[in-house]
This record gives sequence, C-alpha cells and structure tokens, in this order.
Amino acid sequence: MNIVVLAGGVGGAKLCHGIALSSGQEHLSVVVNTADDFELYGLHISPDLDTMMYTLAGIGNPQTGWGIAGDTFNNFDMLERYGVQPWFRIGDRDLATHLLRTQLIAEGMTLSAITQTLAQRLGVKARILPMTDDRVRTVVDTDEGLFAFQDYFVKLKWQPEVRSLIFEGAEEAHPTDAVLRAIEVADTIIIAPSNLYLSIDPILAVPGIKEMLLNAAAPIIAVTPIIAGESVKGPAAKLMRELGVECSAVAVAQHYADLLNGFVLDSRDAALEPRIAAMGIQTLVTDTLMTNLEARARLACEVLDFADRLRPEKLGGCCPDRLLPSS
Amino acid sequence: MNIVVLAGGVGGAKLCHGIALSSGQEHLSVVVNTADDFELYGLHISPDLDTMMYTLAGIGNPQTGWGIAGDTFNNFDMLERYGVQPWFRIGDRDLATHLLRTQLIAEGMTLSAITQTLAQRLGVKARILPMTDDRVRTVVDTDEGLFAFQDYFVKLKWQPEVRSLIFEGAEEAHPTDAVLRAIEVADTIIIAPSNLYLSIDPILAVPGIKEMLLNAAAPIIAVTPIIAGESVKGPAAKLMRELGVECSAVAVAQHYADLLNGFVLDSRDAALEPRIAAMGIQTLVTDTLMTNLEARARLACEVLDFADRLRPEKLGGCCPDRLLPSS
Repeated sequence: MNIVVLAGGVGGAKLCHGIALSSGQEHLSVVVNTADDFELYGLHISPDLDTMMYTLAGIGNPQTGWGIAGDTFNNFDMLERYGVQPWFRIGDRDLATHLLRTQLIAEGMTLSAITQTLAQRLGVKARILPMTDDRVRTVVDTDEGLFAFQDYFVKLKWQPEVRSLIFEGAEEAHPTDAVLRAIEVADTIIIAPSNLYLSIDPILAVPGIKEMLLNAAAPIIAVTPIIAGESVKGPAAKLMRELGVECSAVAVAQHYADLLNGFVLDSRDAALEPRIAAMGIQTLVTDTLMTNLEARARLACEVLDFADRLRPEKLGGCCPDRLLPSS
Repeated sequence: MNIVVLAGGVGGAKLCHGIALSSGQEHLSVVVNTADDFELYGLHISPDLDTMMYTLAGIGNPQTGWGIAGDTFNNFDMLERYGVQPWFRIGDRDLATHLLRTQLIAEGMTLSAITQTLAQRLGVKARILPMTDDRVRTVVDTDEGLFAFQDYFVKLKWQPEVRSLIFEGAEEAHPTDAVLRAIEVADTIIIAPSNLYLSIDPILAVPGIKEMLLNAAAPIIAVTPIIAGESVKGPAAKLMRELGVECSAVAVAQHYADLLNGFVLDSRDAALEPRIAAMGIQTLVTDTLMTNLEARARLACEVLDFADRLRPEKLGGCCPDRLLPSS
C-alpha cells in the first residue's frame, strides 16, 4: 500500500503524522513544497521540509507547528544583542538543520539526498521528497509591490492584498525521479489540507508532476483547508477573497477538479456537498479539524478508507487496528 | 596614552583585560592574529578575535578561555544527533557571532569593519584590529604531514611533531591602515604572552608590520609565555623543543630581540635575567601568571609602568589608581 501526499507545512504535516500514527510511515511518501525556501545569514532554510521532518520525527513543536519542541533561542537572543532584528525566529537546535543543509548543498549534494540523510538520522521512515532539486521561489504580487514569499508571509504577516503568485524558476525546474516514481506506484494520492495557492500550486507548477497525476492509476483525494469559509491556519481564505474566488470548500474542489476522484470536506460545510458531488467528485464529509493527535490519526484513517472505496480493487483500507470505523 | 598590544587568543586577551581593568579600554588597540581563522559549516570563525572581543566585553568564559560564559550547546547537541561529530564546540550564543560575520563578509564588508561593529555592539571600547583583512592561514608542517591550523590544534590536540610553520597568504597580505596607524601613534607597544610561533609570528609576517614596529617611537615590551620551561597554556613549549630551540624565556627574548626594548619574565625564571639583559634588553621580573582578575590587572599595571620607565619622556605610568606599586 503506497500512499503519496502532496503537502506544504503545518496542515500537511499534521495529516501525514496522522497517517504515520494510524498506518505507519513505511509506505508513506510526501512530496513537499520547496518554493518557500529562502536564505538567511547565508543559510538555506526549507520551512516546509523541516516542519514535515520534525513532525514525522515526533520532535515538532506542537504549539507553533514549526520548529523543534523545547528548543532554546539563545542564538537568536545573541543576534538581538548584536542589534540584528531577526524577523525569522530560529531555535538553537533547528539551526543545526540549516547549518548542515547549507554545508551539504555547498558540497554539491542535492536537496533530496540531504533531506533523506537528515530525516533518516532523526528516525523518520517515511520518504520526504522535495518537489524538485531545482530552485523555485514564490514571489507574491501585491497591491504594495512584489515580495519574496517569506517577506510577505513572515515580515509582512500576509497583510498586503495579493493580486497573483509567481513561481519563479518553476518552468525550468525538474521534478525528481523519486517524486515521479512515487506518484507512479501510488495506491492512494492525497492533496493535504495545505494552502492551495502557496503550498500545492508550486508543486503542480513543476513541469511533469501534474501530467503524472492526471495519468495516475491511484485515486486522488483532496482534503479541504477551508472550513466554514475560513482557513484553519494561514492566509488561504484571505487569498481566495483577494483573488476573487468564492471562499469555500467548493472553490477548493473546483481548483483541483481535473485531478480529483474524491474530496474531503468538513461536517460544518455538509450543505456544500451536493455542489461538489455535482462536479463528478466523490465526497467524504467528516470532522477535518486536527486538534490533537487522535484527531490526526482518525482523519487520516477515514481518508485512507475513503480512498479504498474509490479504488476498483480494494486494498483493505488504512489500518488494521483502525481507531474509528469509517463514516 | 596609546597602548598597542599584539596578541593571539587566551593569554593575550587576559593581559588586555588586565589593561582594561587597570587603565580603561579607551586608549587600547589590540592587533590580533587571524591566521587561525577557519571555515566550519560554511561559517567564518575567527577564534582569536572572538576570544579578545568576548573577554574585553566581560562575557568570556573564564573556565575555557574561549566562548561565552553560560553559553548553551543545544545546536551542538543537535548536530551530534544528526551524526555529525563536530570537533569544534560552538555554543549557541557564540554561533551568532559566526553567523553575522559570515553574512557581513558575504555582503562585502571587511573583517576589520565587521569586528568593529560586533565589538561596539557588545560595549567594547578598545579597538580590536585584525592584523589584516586579507586571508592568511597557518599551515603546520609536521612529522605526520601538513595540517591546517585548527586540524593540528583542535582535532589532533597539537600532538604531531612540528617541523615548521607556513603562513599561507601572508606574503600577499596587507596590514590594515588602522594597524599601521595604531603602531605609529603608540606610546607603548606590548607583545602579549601569546604563542610566539602560532600567534605573534603570523602578525609579524604581514609585510609592513615588522618594519613599522622597528621604526616605532614607542618602547616595545614582550611578556613571556614561558614560565619555568613550560607554556602557561597550549603548545608553545612543545613547539620550542620540536623546533630545536631552548625552551625558556631567554629564547623568547631572543626570538623578538631585534624588536624589543623591554622583556617581562617570571619571578620563577629570575636566574635567567642576566642572559636577557646581556642582549641589551631591559627586564622586569615579576609574577606573570594571570590566575585571576586581580593578577591580570596587577601584571598589566606593572608592564605599563615598566614601559613608562623605558620611554625618554615620562607619561605617568599606567594607572592613576594603581593597584600595586611597580616593582
């Protein structure tokens, strides 16, 4: 049973953690957005890869969703003492990841190989796959001008009004063989409840990935990041409004429509189900809010069972020791 | 009263701290060895500059002589978790210095300007002057082959037998204007009790510095790093034996003879005094072991008073509120 998840940071990591908790990590491959990567103090930082890695390693900070639980910020405090006003808080342990990655990149190692090495060291059994080893950077076109993603997201706290998104370098980027192969042999493909524009679209913008998904044998299921017209976290809902799109699970399903066999929407949006079904997409209505570890595992289990029902040949659903019966 | 000290790391920093404690930092310029600088995880590390800066800022670690007092090593622990076996322990706060320096170098700032900026931020009033802004690197030629300085010093714990030292890049290096100007206007020049071969010789190897010292109006005084045939710290004595030099204060005075007006040797070596005096060098015999802050200040005071006696025009010695009468 091969499971592939396309994911960004926090929301995607929660669902992947749920899969890990309910079905183990061995059969899980996660294709992760790297268009949020950036450089700080000369260090290569990959926020989504790190969030995924720390979460699957069980050392993620559950309060923030990013960084390492119990990390200290003495390096950060010293930078402040030097008069630097760092807009991006890096913990002392977290910094080790960036230092090593930067060094290994300088030595010519690919981001994929580095990610595999670091994740293995932390005991992660899932395959965490950067969408590409090439440089892709999200540029946000706003009413206040163009901004590099982290400037928009962290420095400006996603306040400027967005007009469009540019995935710089995407057209020339290549998906890695590992990504293409994972999609090819997948039994289930899940689009995580990550930001559709900022986390998933950059993955789909890497030439070859969308084509591979359109030809995939496995059912493709998206989990909504929008509940009752609001984002669970981050600027997804705000972006939908700014881009002139209906801010609802329906628009999310519409956004991915050509790829989807199934769509998971929240119980709070049950009334929207007929509109999604009308697109020819199978639906699962359930509680999608992953407020604790049990909720992560339960949602993952339900999504995997849903996938099993969409597959011509049954593979037996998610979990031998299923936490809850599928709804 | 302008005081210039040529110095390496720990021993030099102690004496400079003594000067700071007894006479203030305002009139102190320290020319610091940078031939020990190296790169780790892509970071530019300047061990002697940092030891001097932390010590003069009052945040140095008095136990180790390097690093920051009370620093944590969570970054280091995480690197170990990643399977890296870091041979150079960098504290979390200390790391901020290397990160900023590396970033500022990448932005085109000189090591001198960076050092001034960082030191000012930490409240250091003395001028800490890298001997050059150019790249000079000590290479140690040993019975086990050639080693970069930090490999010899930290990794191999200075165990291989040294045949000679190479200051790579020194011939093409330029002293900074600040270094030349400091020596020019100095009233007192002190060669710190640093390793003569590894800390002071690289400074003297930068073309122009030795010439400027030979023409200096100020008396030049060296303080011995050798007491009773042993180094206070580090490999100085071992190196003297390996290089076939008598391991004593006499050989230190001999090493610097063409530069010196005065030499400070330890009371334990009082019997050697006539041999140094016979070179035409004035001597001060005193307790040179700086075991605590009071000892640092007392030695500094005595050295500055000694300098005053060597100067044709008296400037009034070291300290209005002198800790001890000069011996």
